[in-house]
Amino acid sequence: MSTTVISEVLEKAKRAKQAAASLALLSPAEKDRVLLAMATAIEANVPAILAANARDVKQAEERRRSAAPLDRLLLGEQRVKEMAEGLRDIVRLTDPVGEIITGWRMPNGLEIAKVRVPLGVIGIIYESRPNVTVDAAGLCLKSGNACVLRGGSDAINSNIALVNLLTQTGIPAGLPEGAISIIETTDREAAGQLMRMDQYLDVLIPRGGHDLIQRVKREATIPVIETGEGLCHVYLDASADPKQAEDIVVNAKCQRPSVCNAAETLLVHRDAAAKLLPTIGRRLTDLGVELRACDRSIRYLEGARPATEEDWSTEYMALILSVKVVDSLEEAIAHIGRYGTRHSDTIVTQDLSNARRFTRAVDSAVVYVNASTRFTDGGQFGFGAEIGISNQKLHARGPMGLAEMTTYKYVVYGSGHVRA
Amino acid sequence: MSTTVISEVLEKAKRAKQAAASLALLSPAEKDRVLLAMATAIEANVPAILAANARDVKQAEERRRSAAPLDRLLLGEQRVKEMAEGLRDIVRLTDPVGEIITGWRMPNGLEIAKVRVPLGVIGIIYESRPNVTVDAAGLCLKSGNACVLRGGSDAINSNIALVNLLTQTGIPAGLPEGAISIIETTDREAAGQLMRMDQYLDVLIPRGGHDLIQRVKREATIPVIETGEGLCHVYLDASADPKQAEDIVVNAKCQRPSVCNAAETLLVHRDAAAKLLPTIGRRLTDLGVELRACDRSIRYLEGARPATEEDWSTEYMALILSVKVVDSLEEAIAHIGRYGTRHSDTIVTQDLSNARRFTRAVDSAVVYVNASTRFTDGGQFGFGAEIGISNQKLHARGPMGLAEMTTYKYVVYGSGHVRA
Repeated sequence: MSTTVISEVLEKAKRAKQAAASLALLSPAEKDRVLLAMATAIEANVPAILAANARDVKQAEERRRSAAPLDRLLLGEQRVKEMAEGLRDIVRLTDPVGEIITGWRMPNGLEIAKVRVPLGVIGIIYESRPNVTVDAAGLCLKSGNACVLRGGSDAINSNIALVNLLTQTGIPAGLPEGAISIIETTDREAAGQLMRMDQYLDVLIPRGGHDLIQRVKREATIPVIETGEGLCHVYLDASADPKQAEDIVVNAKCQRPSVCNAAETLLVHRDAAAKLLPTIGRRLTDLGVELRACDRSIRYLEGARPATEEDWSTEYMALILSVKVVDSLEEAIAHIGRYGTRHSDTIVTQDLSNARRFTRAVDSAVVYVNASTRFTDGGQFGFGAEIGISNQKLHARGPMGLAEMTTYKYVVYGSGHVRA
Repeated sequence: MSTTVISEVLEKAKRAKQAAASLALLSPAEKDRVLLAMATAIEANVPAILAANARDVKQAEERRRSAAPLDRLLLGEQRVKEMAEGLRDIVRLTDPVGEIITGWRMPNGLEIAKVRVPLGVIGIIYESRPNVTVDAAGLCLKSGNACVLRGGSDAINSNIALVNLLTQTGIPAGLPEGAISIIETTDREAAGQLMRMDQYLDVLIPRGGHDLIQRVKREATIPVIETGEGLCHVYLDASADPKQAEDIVVNAKCQRPSVCNAAETLLVHRDAAAKLLPTIGRRLTDLGVELRACDRSIRYLEGARPATEEDWSTEYMALILSVKVVDSLEEAIAHIGRYGTRHSDTIVTQDLSNARRFTRAVDSAVVYVNASTRFTDGGQFGFGAEIGISNQKLHARGPMGLAEMTTYKYVVYGSGHVRA
């Protein structure tokens, strides 16, 4: 690894840790003033941001990127304004820091308070969309955390321009120096170096595909919050209301198929298959969904092709749905336990005891009854914003809002108390 | 690595994951029945446990272990009875599983409940004391978690005897098979294998010294909760009450010097040094404490030797205390930030604004005002029991009781809700 990479990553991680100590002590009003100054600066500098972005887009075209990543990369005046608006939305959220989560007095008179505090320094490794840069920096700031960002190489010029703007306008408004930084070295080693900065970083949040998450799990020495992978199921119970079943399956699969909370597999109780599948299948096919069916469901699904074992563990992120008939609620629960990613799963049922059994036995971050899996989202949960959707169990599960970007400390007052 | 090791670790991890699904659904009464059966079995089998322990002690003597580890290893009738009593204490604690932590109804009518659930499978890697085996198994069971234990090789016979007893009496009383297991292979590879069982384990808790923690950080692919390392400070402010100062320093250093919440460094404001240090120094020296003093404090401390730079970052875990005079509260806070381990630190002061400044600016799991650092303990916090003291920021900080051994899921009820 080159000395330059080591020193850039190390330097930014160190400065972030120093900044975190000051950041933790800023008042909500001080942080909001910085956020508002940043929002104004973004709006005042649209041409410069678009110019930097144009260099990224040109480079990506030269690298022959396909349409989808190019679209995610491309900024227009509207998208830049939305970044500024996103920062103003963050200002309107309640500052989580300083909340007394709980507290009590011990029999010996010691007074214990559990107080919400920032995590410290958050490393975020993400892929191409440049709006994540502003959004992540804003959420970290509001929750009192310093951040070291590492974006995708395709967006490097946009990201550097945005971070420079945020810090240049933020620092005069009260942002501690080093509180927001981006790794400018785009090679793979720089990311690896960042993953091992446990001396300075408190948490690492990778936002990206399977390969990134696996690399981080393998290489990181910093505590990681895994986000993203979602192989979500819709289970139609024997007692499912046909209209609800149809609406929920269609919404969970089609409303935005490329995201982690979209459904990939439909499970149907054998007693409901003949009644529900033909109509649902037609609606899905009309919407352009490719169906991959087990040998007991294929007869009800016109145009479906046979599912293979691999289908049950594939997160398509596309208009494809695998369909399987099960003999019982227990079989559905077991299938979800075996193939799911503990993200979001739903049961459609009118049977109270089956609803209760499903919600208890399915081990996912969000378990739904008669609702689409698409609701697993910080905005839909009323958090106002999210830094990601966790599908690990430690620290936070499901949508992570500002509160999930904090930890706590115990503050204990005595009057000369010693332990006997 | 031998095939036997892989298959033992893999087999036990897999079975634990299967067991976790059943364990999560047990009622509080069902779990308590198992715990009581186990307690009774331990009391009924004291001779067998002591016989297994005698084999360990003999082996340890052959390996020429020193007195302290031998003492930790050695069981007597009393210690075994305390294990049984420990399980009964766990029965008396409130079951954390199923608590609705919070819940709300969204404007669209979706009802969201945040429900406490077990983590799943907890791996615990610990060093020699055999009582940890029973304690950890009991706490995991009460919190609805399966566990895979990996104890020190010195205690292997005791540990196997205890786990066999727990499972042989637990299973007829309702314990799912595989819910409690111990890795019997004592070589280093077996621990490494366990650290990489991310497919089956949800969390890894290492309980041991610096080397173990560092190895786990490096090798584990499972989320880890770091425990243990504690370089704790007592800071005597200029306004400290002399009696409180003396009592707290003596208690924090001497009451049990070998544990993580004992103090290692005493910081004294320059205006208080001449007044407080001579008396405190005498009391400490009388109690056998070796003092290592900075060049400004040494004149007040009879018999002290000069401290070196290394002293500020050394967790002695023995009757040694480093002493440093600081010019200000800010210097004390900076010293703690630089050398501390974010565990437990205390200020002795009568000044309200200094107390508030210290509690906000010191970034430790527990920050005290006018109390000994020795209170950082699940029992002293009223948790009834603890699995360890976390000094990382993710998931849990400070004493970890039953609640900290759980996570949550969102249970969401709709009536055909789809996302627009």
